[in-house]
Amino acid sequence: MLTAKGAATRQRIVEGAALLVRDRGVANVGLDDICAATATSKSQLFHYFPDGKADLMLAVVRYEAEQVITDQLPQLADLTTWRNWQAWRRRVIQIYDAQRAACPLRALTTQLGTADPATREVVEGLTDTWAAYLAAGVQALKDAGEIDPRIDVQKTANAILAAVTGGATLLQSTNRLSYLEDALTEALDNMRRPRNQYVAGGG
Amino acid sequence: MLTAKGAATRQRIVEGAALLVRDRGVANVGLDDICAATATSKSQLFHYFPDGKADLMLAVVRYEAEQVITDQLPQLADLTTWRNWQAWRRRVIQIYDAQRAACPLRALTTQLGTADPATREVVEGLTDTWAAYLAAGVQALKDAGEIDPRIDVQKTANAILAAVTGGATLLQSTNRLSYLEDALTEALDNMRRPRNQYVAGGG
Repeated sequence: MLTAKGAATRQRIVEGAALLVRDRGVANVGLDDICAATATSKSQLFHYFPDGKADLMLAVVRYEAEQVITDQLPQLADLTTWRNWQAWRRRVIQIYDAQRAACPLRALTTQLGTADPATREVVEGLTDTWAAYLAAGVQALKDAGEIDPRIDVQKTANAILAAVTGGATLLQSTNRLSYLEDALTEALDNMRRPRNQYVAGGG
Repeated sequence: MLTAKGAATRQRIVEGAALLVRDRGVANVGLDDICAATATSKSQLFHYFPDGKADLMLAVVRYEAEQVITDQLPQLADLTTWRNWQAWRRRVIQIYDAQRAACPLRALTTQLGTADPATREVVEGLTDTWAAYLAAGVQALKDAGEIDPRIDVQKTANAILAAVTGGATLLQSTNRLSYLEDALTEALDNMRRPRNQYVAGGG
């Protein structure tokens, strides 16, 4: 267990390392750079990260994964009304519009390689956490009678998460925001439409 | 202009290089490897690719982008009925299920870096082509009266493309197929639902 002071030092190192990595990429950041940027000695750094850079980079991956959720708060944690879903949608578009090609987590995991089981575990954990927040929001609308009671909560949450992910991926590869906007609009509107009603002839 | 024979030789080099790159990654494939694998001399290779490896890798990017579309044919080019949309959906899931973590185009553009304007142009061209096929399919259903005439064709096509992209991205990062399945099911079902009809209370 770390003391409060120890935890604060560790966090300072992780956040400093994250900023450097965002700026220069994993390959171009050494432990000396991180010590200098965070006013930490090498022995302090190894105290918190006994395996050195690999250890620290995994902590940075965890930090960046937390940021993905934190950036969406408080909206993501309060998807209890249709109005709040719209506020979350605006927040997500604002985040990715500002980031453009530079999603820090994706850049980092690409550089580290997703084959590493510890990195994969963090990304899977983020996916689960994100989907769980969305599912809680879909469930809240269902409980409030604002959407069709026949809706499948998990499938709907997965589809909304895929809309964000796909919109962000297409934004990064084309620099166009419209995919994210259209995907989120359609996924959220779809949630509000009655189930099992199709246009005549579409059977 | 290349002669038919010249075009065939060039194509053989590109396809051979693509296989090597899929297998080993850009950094681990040299021009000698490509010459050996495609039974080509160095001077032949430079005849078709005067700037050498960079030139050839861009041709491989173009080839892999074409493959993304080709893999989805004939289904993608014939989205004229609801039944055909379902066949395309099954085909897409089959493709990404087989690829899992290994989408060749994404791996390649990640290795080359998407900052390169020529690479970006290929990726944007692929996105446009793909969206145009989907839009043609949405328009066909609209013309046939199978979906609501008020539907916005381009926004719907964008949302479906984002569903595929997001589902594939989540599959690659979590190795779970359910995001792609759920995202496609929801996006296609959504297309068939009447516009502007929401569950009461959801206003």
